[in-house]
Amino acid sequence: MKPEADTAGAGPFSAEERDAVYRVMRERRDVRGEFLPDPVPDDVLRRILEAAHAAPSVGLSQPWNFILIRDPDVRTSVHEAFAKANAEAADMFAGEKGEQYRRLKLQGILEAPLNICITCDRSRGGPVVLGRTHQNDTDLYSTVCAVQNLWLAARAEGVGVGWVSIFREEDVKDILGIPPEIRIVAYLCLGYVKTLYTRPELEARGWRERTPLDELIFADRWSEPVKD
Amino acid sequence: MKPEADTAGAGPFSAEERDAVYRVMRERRDVRGEFLPDPVPDDVLRRILEAAHAAPSVGLSQPWNFILIRDPDVRTSVHEAFAKANAEAADMFAGEKGEQYRRLKLQGILEAPLNICITCDRSRGGPVVLGRTHQNDTDLYSTVCAVQNLWLAARAEGVGVGWVSIFREEDVKDILGIPPEIRIVAYLCLGYVKTLYTRPELEARGWRERTPLDELIFADRWSEPVKD
Repeated sequence: MKPEADTAGAGPFSAEERDAVYRVMRERRDVRGEFLPDPVPDDVLRRILEAAHAAPSVGLSQPWNFILIRDPDVRTSVHEAFAKANAEAADMFAGEKGEQYRRLKLQGILEAPLNICITCDRSRGGPVVLGRTHQNDTDLYSTVCAVQNLWLAARAEGVGVGWVSIFREEDVKDILGIPPEIRIVAYLCLGYVKTLYTRPELEARGWRERTPLDELIFADRWSEPVKD
Repeated sequence: MKPEADTAGAGPFSAEERDAVYRVMRERRDVRGEFLPDPVPDDVLRRILEAAHAAPSVGLSQPWNFILIRDPDVRTSVHEAFAKANAEAADMFAGEKGEQYRRLKLQGILEAPLNICITCDRSRGGPVVLGRTHQNDTDLYSTVCAVQNLWLAARAEGVGVGWVSIFREEDVKDILGIPPEIRIVAYLCLGYVKTLYTRPELEARGWRERTPLDELIFADRWSEPVKD
C-alpha cells in the first residue's frame, strides 16, 4: 500500500532529543514587556516560518498566510486598535480585578521589532475540503497549529513571542487590507528578550492559578472532577 | 517589576536541541492506518498529557479536558458516528475525486489502543476572560495549542497520532456524555506505529500538493501572491 520510498522509522527520539522537545514546551512563554530592539535575522525568521508551514492542516489545505509587519505606521495603527479595545476590556472587570487588569502589560506591538499576523483563508482548498465536511472550523484549528509550531520554534531560536487578541478583528483587517473571506487567527509580536518568566506571567502576577492536570483527565466518558 | 526568582535566561537552544525541535515538527504525521496494538505505557502517556497541559491558554484559562478512551464499546460507537459522516463526505466529492476519497483510510479509531477526546469548556474562567473579551474563540484556539503540543510530544515518544474530524460533533458528545457548554475540539487516535510517511500522506497519495512557503508570506499588509 505504502511506497517504501515514502516511509521512515517511527521510533522514539533519543533521551537528549526528547528533553529538548519537552524543554521548548516548558520554557515557551507569552512575552509582552521584555522585547529588545535587535532585529530577527532573515535566516532565523525563515526557520521559524518553515516550522509554522510544517503544521498539520485539514485536507492538506494549508489555509494560513503570514503578514510580516515592520512598518512603524502600520504598527501604530494596530496599537491604537489594541488600546481602544483594552480600555473597554478593563471596564469589564469589576473593582480590584479591573485595577489589577490595568496594571498588566498585555502587548509589545511597538517595542517588538517584528509583528506577524497569521490569517486563515476560509476558501482555500475549494468548496469541499477533506476533513472539514462535518466540522467547518477545522481550518481555523489548522492555522492555530501553525501558530503553536511558530511559537515553539521561536523559543528554540531565543526569540520571544506574544499573542495579542485584544482588538476588534474588523479594525485590524481594515488596517492590513485583509479581504472579507480571510480571518485573523493570531496577531503576534516577535523579538529577542533578555529574560523569560519561568512560569506563566499571569500566574507569577497573581491573576490566576494553574490547574492540576489530574483534575482535567477523565476515563472513557465525561465526568465531573472529584473535589476535596 | 519582575521578581528575580521568576525569571530565567531566554537565549537560543544549542544546535543539537534546535535540531530536535525542528525534527519533531518535520516528522510529525497524521497517522490513520499503521497503528500497532501495543498499549502506550502510563509514564509515556503522562509526559504527553503534561506537554498538552503546558500549552498557552487565553487568560490562563486552561479550558481543556482530556477524555482517555480505551473501552471498545465506546470506540465502536464513535466509529459508527465516523462511518455515517464519512459516507456523506464521500458523496460530496464529484466523480473520480469521490472514488479517490473512498480509497483513503482516514482514521484508526478501533485499531489504535487509545483514543483521546480533547474538549474546550467555554465557561471556564468565568464570564469575562482576559484576552477573550474581543475574540471569543480564543479559548478554542488555546485548546488547539494543547492538541499540537500533545501531537509533537507523542512523535518524540514514538507514538503516532491521528486527528479525526469526520463526525457530527453532537453524535460524539452524546456517546461521551459531554454537556452542552463543552465543545469537542479534537478526537485523536494514539498508538505506536511501525513506519511513518516522510511527507503528508495526502501528498504522498496524490490528493493535494504542498504550497511553496514564499507564496504565503506578505509584507506589512495583505496582498495577492504573484502567480507565474
